[in-house]
Amino acid sequence: MSAPKKQNMLIAQSGGPSMVINQSLVGAVIEAKKQPSIGRIFGSMHGIKGILEEDLIDLRKESASTLEAVAMTPSSALGTVRMKPTAADCKRIFEMLRDHNVGFFFYIGGNDSAETVHIINQEAIKAKHPIRCFHIPKTIDNDLRSNDHTPGFGSAGRFVAEALQGINLDNRALPGVHISVIMGRHAGFLTAASALGRVHDDDGPHLIYLPESSFSMPKFVKDVKAVYKKLGRCVVAVSEGISDSKGTAIASKFSKEVDSHGNVQLSGTGALGDLLVAELKARTTLPRLRADTFGYLQRSFSGCVSKTDKKEARDVGSVAVQTACQGVKSGSIAIKRKPGKAYKVSYKRVPLTSVARHSREMPATFINKANNNVTQSFIDYAAPIVGKLPKPGRLKGVKVKK
Amino acid sequence: MSAPKKQNMLIAQSGGPSMVINQSLVGAVIEAKKQPSIGRIFGSMHGIKGILEEDLIDLRKESASTLEAVAMTPSSALGTVRMKPTAADCKRIFEMLRDHNVGFFFYIGGNDSAETVHIINQEAIKAKHPIRCFHIPKTIDNDLRSNDHTPGFGSAGRFVAEALQGINLDNRALPGVHISVIMGRHAGFLTAASALGRVHDDDGPHLIYLPESSFSMPKFVKDVKAVYKKLGRCVVAVSEGISDSKGTAIASKFSKEVDSHGNVQLSGTGALGDLLVAELKARTTLPRLRADTFGYLQRSFSGCVSKTDKKEARDVGSVAVQTACQGVKSGSIAIKRKPGKAYKVSYKRVPLTSVARHSREMPATFINKANNNVTQSFIDYAAPIVGKLPKPGRLKGVKVKK
Repeated sequence: MSAPKKQNMLIAQSGGPSMVINQSLVGAVIEAKKQPSIGRIFGSMHGIKGILEEDLIDLRKESASTLEAVAMTPSSALGTVRMKPTAADCKRIFEMLRDHNVGFFFYIGGNDSAETVHIINQEAIKAKHPIRCFHIPKTIDNDLRSNDHTPGFGSAGRFVAEALQGINLDNRALPGVHISVIMGRHAGFLTAASALGRVHDDDGPHLIYLPESSFSMPKFVKDVKAVYKKLGRCVVAVSEGISDSKGTAIASKFSKEVDSHGNVQLSGTGALGDLLVAELKARTTLPRLRADTFGYLQRSFSGCVSKTDKKEARDVGSVAVQTACQGVKSGSIAIKRKPGKAYKVSYKRVPLTSVARHSREMPATFINKANNNVTQSFIDYAAPIVGKLPKPGRLKGVKVKK
Repeated sequence: MSAPKKQNMLIAQSGGPSMVINQSLVGAVIEAKKQPSIGRIFGSMHGIKGILEEDLIDLRKESASTLEAVAMTPSSALGTVRMKPTAADCKRIFEMLRDHNVGFFFYIGGNDSAETVHIINQEAIKAKHPIRCFHIPKTIDNDLRSNDHTPGFGSAGRFVAEALQGINLDNRALPGVHISVIMGRHAGFLTAASALGRVHDDDGPHLIYLPESSFSMPKFVKDVKAVYKKLGRCVVAVSEGISDSKGTAIASKFSKEVDSHGNVQLSGTGALGDLLVAELKARTTLPRLRADTFGYLQRSFSGCVSKTDKKEARDVGSVAVQTACQGVKSGSIAIKRKPGKAYKVSYKRVPLTSVARHSREMPATFINKANNNVTQSFIDYAAPIVGKLPKPGRLKGVKVKK
């Protein structure tokens, strides 16, 4: 069986939305329009759900100005889904792709989405059908293996860094203890980004708790008391995924909702923050204990995009299409950082299996020995991805003699 | 007793921080430097607490560039306080002001802060001392009487509007029910601002609950179900101050912390959002129920300032100093909107009693009949204050034939 001269392309988005996932979509579509081997360009609504339900749209009918407006818009313009397809689903998806003469399949998402692409690709190989299956990376969690970092992280990290700058200033003006609960189930990169806006020695977050280290409530209380004693205030950033020494997420004790990938719901509730405040209330006399949970703000706030992130998200979309059109059968496009002082990246096709399913965590060198902060290595790593942050002004504050 | 030729000035910040309260501080200081009748310029740290403790700084020692950097920085650069002074405190404060040869006292804050200024002014009148006592308006709640709107509201409203734009797009991509809990104890203006980013007919927030209308749980559940039935999703904005028919705040059922103005703590906890989700979970079969509480993000996010708000906050600071130097003894500077189609404001000195203590609420014309949304009148009122918002792009979405 040989491929027809022109083959159709199908693209979809999956998993949690991000600030720049539409850049990847638009990057891929614009590149596809330049490729003579690509016929129709289908968008599937809500990921693979749209393929199963034949809910497809014609992306060649979108004007250049609409595409550019969509690229600048947060969240997933094609809709998204959190759905792990069964083997039967994958077979059906593959058949649908074949029926619509789809020769190029692109799926934008995280490690779960990469696994979906991998399974569909396996079905295609079994059927000896030359569909090219590509994963385009996206995750604010920054937890894809084989990548220096992932599109979506830079902008979400920027939101978190700017948010903590503000919360630190608020806490400095009206002292107390403030806890910010930030997304991140197993990987602490996004919570760690809270450190990027610090300027002065006494700037918060003063304590950062990540899912990579086991969380001890007595240690947490002790840490907060020590910071408060020194500064008269304390700003804490906590990952929603912090877990006890047995690996059980503290927040999971409040939630029974599980998605089809087996993940317990951690976001969309203030329970973890309120628990931490309750513990401090019970065990200390510290005043003004507050917790805010960033929730969906951090992945869809329209006013907060990292320029680097925006560009790279666009690039991985177009590189995926170029790579597929060059005859490569399958893969994911990984972001690699070039050695050297100046920040530069390259894009490399990697096998689907190298990003699918399993995720990565923060390397130990990014976490301090006390397991309650990040190291300068992390700052050096993340700063260029998140971009230059505002530098808060501070009064010199020359005291008047009493 | 006659005033000496030059008298010193003291300025302080009070109540919740905002994005632009430092603009008012810097506006006042820059204006004061131009006034020949003003000698030293003292800043009191943490509002009246700094006066009581003689914790003052010399604002003439700050460079122009530091002042401008501080003006662009969120939160209260002099620190702030939530403290209702006793009669004895006020007497002591007045004595301290007199001892430091303060002839001009400026206090930036909301209605509680205006009350503090009023009491100090009364003490000065009793003592026949010619201290000029001025209140400079600030509150993200937008609830000062005699004002069309207040500095701080425009930027916080902008944050809320942009946040809801993102949350609406997120919810459209990954449907379910999302509840945003927004600050506002008695006045719903900030929660109402969530409507300003809506572009398409189906854009959220689809339901808006304000403290001005009594909140009924069965009605809320019914409203959400109706929206979900129509759109397959539902985005809700709720004010932290929503109250039952007896006027008891729903959130107050979870909190016992009370500040010195007698206000129960409503912010810094996710309890209200989690309660609303629990009610929907118990009474419906709707999927993906999530609640996010904006907390302190909405008043200190450095990346979100309304240009109009920034300018007006600067202006009220300088106008207060000008007015005091023209010989007016006391007052507050109110923002008045000029009649006509184009947005224009003027600043007017009003008596302290007209803004002190009592606050204002949303007028009935801003709330729809069903008590679950805002009217076009509100949009027309608030849009110029918040400024032009991003316009999200949307795919035309031409369906592919099955």
